[in-house]
Amino acid sequence: MSVNNSINVDLLKERQNASFDSEEFAALFWQGENKLQMKRFFETELLSDTEDLHIYEYLSYEDLYTKALNDCVKAAEKLKKLQNKINPDGNEIYPTLMMGPLAESLMPLGNTFTVHILMFTRALKSHGTDELYQKFGKRADNFEIIGTYAQTELGHGTNLKGLETRADYDRKTDEFILNTPTLSSYKWWPGGLGQSVNYCIVVAQLYINNESKGIQMFLLQVRDEETHMPLPGIDIGDIGKKIGFNGVNNGFLGLKNVRIPRTNMLMRNSKVLSDGTFIQSPKSQLAYLPMVYVRCMVVFNAGYHLALAATIATRYSAVRRQSPINPDEPEPQILDHVTQQHKLFPEIATAIAYNLSASKLNQYFQDTTVAIKKNDFSRLEELHALACTLKASSSYDATAGIERLRLACGGHGYLTSSNFGNIYAKISVTCTYEGENTVLYLQVGKILMKKWADVLAEKQLMPTMSYLNDWKNSKTFNWNGSWDCMIKALQFVTTKKTEITFSHYMRRLKMGQSQPIALNNTGIELIQVAELHACVFVASNFFTEVTGDALAKQSNELRAVLHNLLELFLLKTILRYMNFILLFINLTDADVTDLQNRLEEVLKRLRPDAVAICDSFDFHDSVLQSTLGAYDGNVYERIYAAAKQSSLNSQPVPKSFHTHLKPFMQGKL
Amino acid sequence: MSVNNSINVDLLKERQNASFDSEEFAALFWQGENKLQMKRFFETELLSDTEDLHIYEYLSYEDLYTKALNDCVKAAEKLKKLQNKINPDGNEIYPTLMMGPLAESLMPLGNTFTVHILMFTRALKSHGTDELYQKFGKRADNFEIIGTYAQTELGHGTNLKGLETRADYDRKTDEFILNTPTLSSYKWWPGGLGQSVNYCIVVAQLYINNESKGIQMFLLQVRDEETHMPLPGIDIGDIGKKIGFNGVNNGFLGLKNVRIPRTNMLMRNSKVLSDGTFIQSPKSQLAYLPMVYVRCMVVFNAGYHLALAATIATRYSAVRRQSPINPDEPEPQILDHVTQQHKLFPEIATAIAYNLSASKLNQYFQDTTVAIKKNDFSRLEELHALACTLKASSSYDATAGIERLRLACGGHGYLTSSNFGNIYAKISVTCTYEGENTVLYLQVGKILMKKWADVLAEKQLMPTMSYLNDWKNSKTFNWNGSWDCMIKALQFVTTKKTEITFSHYMRRLKMGQSQPIALNNTGIELIQVAELHACVFVASNFFTEVTGDALAKQSNELRAVLHNLLELFLLKTILRYMNFILLFINLTDADVTDLQNRLEEVLKRLRPDAVAICDSFDFHDSVLQSTLGAYDGNVYERIYAAAKQSSLNSQPVPKSFHTHLKPFMQGKL
Repeated sequence: MSVNNSINVDLLKERQNASFDSEEFAALFWQGENKLQMKRFFETELLSDTEDLHIYEYLSYEDLYTKALNDCVKAAEKLKKLQNKINPDGNEIYPTLMMGPLAESLMPLGNTFTVHILMFTRALKSHGTDELYQKFGKRADNFEIIGTYAQTELGHGTNLKGLETRADYDRKTDEFILNTPTLSSYKWWPGGLGQSVNYCIVVAQLYINNESKGIQMFLLQVRDEETHMPLPGIDIGDIGKKIGFNGVNNGFLGLKNVRIPRTNMLMRNSKVLSDGTFIQSPKSQLAYLPMVYVRCMVVFNAGYHLALAATIATRYSAVRRQSPINPDEPEPQILDHVTQQHKLFPEIATAIAYNLSASKLNQYFQDTTVAIKKNDFSRLEELHALACTLKASSSYDATAGIERLRLACGGHGYLTSSNFGNIYAKISVTCTYEGENTVLYLQVGKILMKKWADVLAEKQLMPTMSYLNDWKNSKTFNWNGSWDCMIKALQFVTTKKTEITFSHYMRRLKMGQSQPIALNNTGIELIQVAELHACVFVASNFFTEVTGDALAKQSNELRAVLHNLLELFLLKTILRYMNFILLFINLTDADVTDLQNRLEEVLKRLRPDAVAICDSFDFHDSVLQSTLGAYDGNVYERIYAAAKQSSLNSQPVPKSFHTHLKPFMQGKL
Repeated sequence: MSVNNSINVDLLKERQNASFDSEEFAALFWQGENKLQMKRFFETELLSDTEDLHIYEYLSYEDLYTKALNDCVKAAEKLKKLQNKINPDGNEIYPTLMMGPLAESLMPLGNTFTVHILMFTRALKSHGTDELYQKFGKRADNFEIIGTYAQTELGHGTNLKGLETRADYDRKTDEFILNTPTLSSYKWWPGGLGQSVNYCIVVAQLYINNESKGIQMFLLQVRDEETHMPLPGIDIGDIGKKIGFNGVNNGFLGLKNVRIPRTNMLMRNSKVLSDGTFIQSPKSQLAYLPMVYVRCMVVFNAGYHLALAATIATRYSAVRRQSPINPDEPEPQILDHVTQQHKLFPEIATAIAYNLSASKLNQYFQDTTVAIKKNDFSRLEELHALACTLKASSSYDATAGIERLRLACGGHGYLTSSNFGNIYAKISVTCTYEGENTVLYLQVGKILMKKWADVLAEKQLMPTMSYLNDWKNSKTFNWNGSWDCMIKALQFVTTKKTEITFSHYMRRLKMGQSQPIALNNTGIELIQVAELHACVFVASNFFTEVTGDALAKQSNELRAVLHNLLELFLLKTILRYMNFILLFINLTDADVTDLQNRLEEVLKRLRPDAVAICDSFDFHDSVLQSTLGAYDGNVYERIYAAAKQSSLNSQPVPKSFHTHLKPFMQGKL
């Protein structure tokens, strides 16, 4: 059965009854009409021949890798072609679009070249000498060689200082000798390392005369350029199946006395001279920025994928009919169940909140980069704290939200053709990579302790923490339930919780615990304050972005929708942290009842606009890749069509009937 | 590299330093020394030749099905053989052990015969006539025919009345004509339906003279017994890939004018006579029990799999060293980070809490079954409410807990060889099947509303809800922080929240809303009270099971450990529901600080026993199937060995290098 393209009547009605123009919202969501149209142009140019992702799921692991590799190669060719057609001297299409939302549709199994583009080529350019770039960097830019960035080890992750891989300088031959002395020092995880690269940058402990000089980067050839055979001393391969990203070919690398020329060290900053003299890098802080950048991307991705999942679940909820509300009436759209609205709409609001926070964070990143170029490092601490806390909170919230949305679709959410499985696998991993969330929250918690000491010393704080100073002397908080009040309540509560956490930390110091031990023992509360701090930023920023003059040019209708979303986000947040709020703020029973009433009311107000809001995210069907969430809402037809593609249905009777089932049924086994 | 069998030194130390005997705890956990030894005997007999689950992950979907089918057939043969050897007249091994924990290890990809054993054969026996059983039931018991139970439809799940499949009685031919008149009425999901069965029981709306007689069951042959070809009028196949259970072969079924003899209706209770007379079943409540039974199993499974995940994460946390607490010292076991303890230990306590609740619920089920056989239906409502609320709360808590435990293992938890992916996929689906959790919670919420009306009318309540009567007149609650107090606080808060929810419901009725509309509008709060009610039961039961005389025979050491686990579970629960507690109970700042202190202290007390507690769950390595969680703790060796099994590593250079990668790198594409 082929799927017809007429729009499901329920969805049609939802769209007709919306209170606002989803095109107007789409332009806002995509940061302007121009960018929206550009996005659509790229989609038309690039996604017209996209295959159904879900047929890949019947392949073996090796065939899936081959398919993924083929997609990556094709995507690169396609983007190059379009770049040449439109702007041969630019790079806004190729290689830029090899990463980001569009790339996910071009390479739905993951991009085995991501690390090559994002880190290998960039590191060669920014950390390698000019000679090294001339020799390898240019070839890498042209994909004549392909590399990856090998840092994480089987036994060592977030704590860089713990890396065991070593590079010993051999003055006699002017070479480094690379070794992974133990199994736990095997490089593990780098994307593409398995079978897709022939070079890599190895991050290792530099030793000169057996004396450690700290972490450095080294360019290493791992496979022969002609035959692709691993070079001597190199144990390399694929790390095996993962929950997701099975096209990415994450790999391992063991090294046994592998020699590289001294000049293969990336020596733009730190240097080793041929006589063994080590010259330390003068600007180590710069090395830190790329990691911050990736964390900003995580925040954007979290909001984006949460919106994707919310779109699928919301459209499905408008089409699906189940469980009569009134026993005498036919089954309603499940979107009419208040409990279903309560599952969906807060996630829509959260997706928008993180989308706005990601933009703001990106602005901080750009501003800080500009400042750093002028040797002004003063913004780095704030950027670091903000990126850490938002990376952690957005990845946790999106992961939990995507799963809630899948469960909101009942059994059909469990079908891979719903695409929830892929979306979840893509986002849940962001909780542990690029800085494990707990480690990041602890860093922010520790910064908050430092800043609370500054508060007590009456020092000024960075802007995004200055609310601690505003509320330090307030013992009580006057609640009136306004948006402004709710945000201030979050600030107040975070301040009070920081104060208490600080006092618990100080108590431990006074008991004689060392600083690190006291911090470890205060860990649970450090994480709580870091999480609250994230929430203050996200809520304040949402408020600022949709009130006041920010939306002066938008229609009243759109403003009303955004205000409903803000109202829901703030209510949801206040109710989520009610355990802390009730501790510090004296809410009356009437106040609490009022919050519950407002929650129920705003869900009701958002109900008629829910589908149109998701339409405003403007996700192409090839981006959604979902039987439950396609624009036309022909859910059952699509599920059936997807089932028909199962490889088990290719013949009326599978071979295994004759080889296994029949003999068993006949008692012949 | 082969994995050596010596125990990791860190794990060895953990085991030596435990304060109690894990064998004593194991006997308690497995409900007695005899049952523990029996379990171990079965494991030795049956799991000695178990293959590594993770090599399956490289297969294509169809090969994986064949492998799963092979496992099922082998498991049946193995169990039959052992049954014959030990007790030829019994059934405690075969078919009993075809389901449950051991079966998961024998058939790690899922058992395509589960529905055949659990529902098809049982339904034929209990709902079919003696003639039908003679003709088909016996053959089914011997696997000469294999069937499944087809109820859920593509468009219809929890609400049985909404099923569209129809069976029209044709008096002329004494036959039923089966039809799925729309795509949304296609049967969808039954295990084995795809390609593994040749019969099924179809649940359909019975029509006589076009007049509906409600839902009935019909035996239908779907495939030829010799050729396995689908019979005329039957559109049958596999529903495609899912997040998990890909060996189960869930299927779809469309019917077009398929005729079956009248006697193929399962007519032990309701009947259709050849003249078209319909006789209604006299005991419809009985039909309800099997569903309750499956919900009890879900609660057991939730605790069991949460314990499995906790074992993996805890052992890994004892082996893994990361992130120095003190910068001058080597990296500690991550189990020494307080934040890590806070991720692991509450899940261990929760697993035990649900394990104990599942036993209690099972006791209720047995008692109710006995009573019903004596025509006493009085316990059914309580059993129903308890099974609904515990099924929902245990599946939600286990799903979230398993994911937290996976994330606690950082990146390596994302490797399928960690086995978290499988465990998660197995449990998260229990949130939506056998009664979607929200639907179940709403049912319990509605029962609580009915019972609150009884409270107001001064009626007696069922024992597990009688606390509502105890607290109805109390305006305040005296907190002293004892275990007994914490449980009473949960009861008190649930009572107050029920009272408020009832008042909101009544307010809506008074505003003129119909009962169903008012209930829908009160949905969010109905779910909250149902969840709180579950929590009262689980906490009270944990308390009862490990205090007083319950553990009179156990050593003081074991009792101390169980009390630590109870303390942690209660603290965690009180802190989780602090938003409600602070609303109704006047806790001082000192009370709240005390709870936080106690939480930190009990984590510290449990730290030296954590590994030994998990050892007490006594999971065989073939049950754990985890590189991170094996008994010997040789984590890195096992991860490396698993990686080497990746099909991409079978040759040094994959074919795709020559076909895709090299031409691309040479610019020839």
